[in-house]
Amino acid sequence: MANASIIAVGTELLFGQIVNTNAAYISEKLQLLGVNVLYHYTVGDNEGRMRSTLERALAESDIVITSGGLGPTQDDLTKEIIAETMGLPLAMDERALAEIASFFDRIGREMTDNNRKQAMLPVGATVFYNERGTAPGFAACEGGKTVIALPGPPSELAAMFENSVIPFMEDRSDAAIYHRTLRFYGIGESQLETDLAPLIEGQTDPTLATYAKEGECSLRIASKRRTRDEAAAAVGEMERTVKEIAGKYIYSDSNEELYEVVAKAMIEKRLTIAAAESCTGGLFASTLIGYTGISEVFDAGYVTYSNGAKTRELGVPKALIEQFGAVSEEVAKAMAEGARKAAGTDIGIAVTGVAGPDGGTEEKPSGFAWIALADAQGTITRAHLSRDKGREINRRITVLAMLALLRRYVAGQNG
Amino acid sequence: MANASIIAVGTELLFGQIVNTNAAYISEKLQLLGVNVLYHYTVGDNEGRMRSTLERALAESDIVITSGGLGPTQDDLTKEIIAETMGLPLAMDERALAEIASFFDRIGREMTDNNRKQAMLPVGATVFYNERGTAPGFAACEGGKTVIALPGPPSELAAMFENSVIPFMEDRSDAAIYHRTLRFYGIGESQLETDLAPLIEGQTDPTLATYAKEGECSLRIASKRRTRDEAAAAVGEMERTVKEIAGKYIYSDSNEELYEVVAKAMIEKRLTIAAAESCTGGLFASTLIGYTGISEVFDAGYVTYSNGAKTRELGVPKALIEQFGAVSEEVAKAMAEGARKAAGTDIGIAVTGVAGPDGGTEEKPSGFAWIALADAQGTITRAHLSRDKGREINRRITVLAMLALLRRYVAGQNG
Repeated sequence: MANASIIAVGTELLFGQIVNTNAAYISEKLQLLGVNVLYHYTVGDNEGRMRSTLERALAESDIVITSGGLGPTQDDLTKEIIAETMGLPLAMDERALAEIASFFDRIGREMTDNNRKQAMLPVGATVFYNERGTAPGFAACEGGKTVIALPGPPSELAAMFENSVIPFMEDRSDAAIYHRTLRFYGIGESQLETDLAPLIEGQTDPTLATYAKEGECSLRIASKRRTRDEAAAAVGEMERTVKEIAGKYIYSDSNEELYEVVAKAMIEKRLTIAAAESCTGGLFASTLIGYTGISEVFDAGYVTYSNGAKTRELGVPKALIEQFGAVSEEVAKAMAEGARKAAGTDIGIAVTGVAGPDGGTEEKPSGFAWIALADAQGTITRAHLSRDKGREINRRITVLAMLALLRRYVAGQNG
Repeated sequence: MANASIIAVGTELLFGQIVNTNAAYISEKLQLLGVNVLYHYTVGDNEGRMRSTLERALAESDIVITSGGLGPTQDDLTKEIIAETMGLPLAMDERALAEIASFFDRIGREMTDNNRKQAMLPVGATVFYNERGTAPGFAACEGGKTVIALPGPPSELAAMFENSVIPFMEDRSDAAIYHRTLRFYGIGESQLETDLAPLIEGQTDPTLATYAKEGECSLRIASKRRTRDEAAAAVGEMERTVKEIAGKYIYSDSNEELYEVVAKAMIEKRLTIAAAESCTGGLFASTLIGYTGISEVFDAGYVTYSNGAKTRELGVPKALIEQFGAVSEEVAKAMAEGARKAAGTDIGIAVTGVAGPDGGTEEKPSGFAWIALADAQGTITRAHLSRDKGREINRRITVLAMLALLRRYVAGQNG
């Protein structure tokens, strides 16, 4: 198994002004390519420290990937130090120059001499042209070692990795890798691991890895075989076994977000919806509206934060709130029914709870909420408790619970 | 100036499962303490690589800070390798043991022998007790070098840094540092830098540094003097000069978020509000409701995504939408007035725009929105255009523009 080290270059990283997300991004991709990551390094725009770090990384690893330091200014030293360390001269790459010129054309700005410098690349390197910025990346091979240099801005780096680096590495590999990520709601990571223990223990290929996310978890199934088809078949077979064991918790087999899955299903079945929110304060509507095209089915949201608003906008009887409290099954039910009626939609969904940190009681602590979903046939309700991790996280986890309830409901409907 | 390197320990970082936010957090704090950061390293739970990295970091830096690897399992090697490298034996720290036992009491779980191991600490080290977890941290000094070991979970690390590491480092410094962060809205980072150029150029103490954030920017003024009072006086004087030049763009002189500043001012002046949102889809309400205590003044939010909802909930005349379009000054005005009237609040605020990526025109591109604010006297409107960076960012920047309009309005009101 090949191994790699990653060097992020940029003084702003050492000042803590930005977080190094590139290292995690590249690491995850390399793991999927069957490459083992030994180290992450971060160095500033400093010639001596950059050179000694590159030398150390090259001594230890087969592949070194750098991010950043390919810009047009004097600070940007990555390319020069790589070329020098590998003993490769720099020469003008005419296609890179033309691409940079055309980038400036597109954004309507003048290209400077500094930018011409960006088209000087190590002789013999494989050039990765940049769709989203000016700095080209490249891969240079020498003495059995490969150095891959990528631009620092995460969107430029990710596009170049997907479109150029992965094909470059796959071409040079005698194996093909295929993977799939299943997403789960309603089961914790440790429970999932326990349930899948017979598959995970002693795994060789495909490999299974679980990951915890806020309020949910995921499972990656990966296989490395002679061809992509063989790897895909092995992953597919394992996926079927996993689904037999834990299929009822899976909401996506292609790494989608829960809100995307729900939005797609609602649009497909043409189910219109209105939402009434108290503790989540509009976050449910805002999350669902993150899906482009949701306007076909999402009609209205009511953020009824005050009791007066619950009565006025949704027709929740004042007496009901007084009798059961604003955070109660009865009020959640009345809110969902009121939202559905006010908006004239197929579905009304509602939530009322304690976001925290204040206002919790022993019976209804911070993170507790009642959720209700109303349709023409009636109303279902669920009590939901997030393990209290503060106001923001409670709200996000409560929104996930609403989406999960909605997903199960929509899956049971005929379109 | 002292210098430092940071080593993050954990195989999950090299798998890309989690992003190393600790390095950025520690780096920012160290800069404020006047310590220069040379390198970030990440290594897995591997004895040989951890040892060689610690040795390299100690050879180059006065201070080495590690995060992670202090847990109770066999994987966790950080403490043992630090002790061995510095030639310090480990011994049981009775207070650490008592704190770990009391932590397990609090969460109602049994303490295992593994957890006792966490109370074994290098002899002579300054121990940092952990308020949020089981692993104590420590600082060990030997041969003019200091190694500070901190737990990996970011919330444990940050609490320990604030409460223990900063006092530890300030005690050992002959200088005191004071800083303040001013937050700006309505001026870009490069314009702010240009306006403050006479102050920034040739700066020695206080130092000024600008930072760009999404839709806004900030300025940090820091001074290092013999005493904290002297440093605070120097920062105060510089702050007054900055305010003379760019004061009208400052919304906080204590690094608060815009929504917090607005929420506080509205609660103080007892101004009640209702919000009507189209393109932002509930994100304005959800953002404002992030402030604990907002229920005193926030009455209701209307997510009127469809034209029907705008007419039904807010009384926007159907003819107005047909004549001017849903994204128009007239409709924004009618939405704000309608929200205020429906909820019976002092203020109504509204937004209607194009979130993107679809639906934009040359005249009203993605990122364009009309914002309106209504009170008993009348209604003000603003056109707002975010430089289109995608649906999510457009929505967040539009919410900032709404908050900024609200802030100026509230500042002009007598409570």
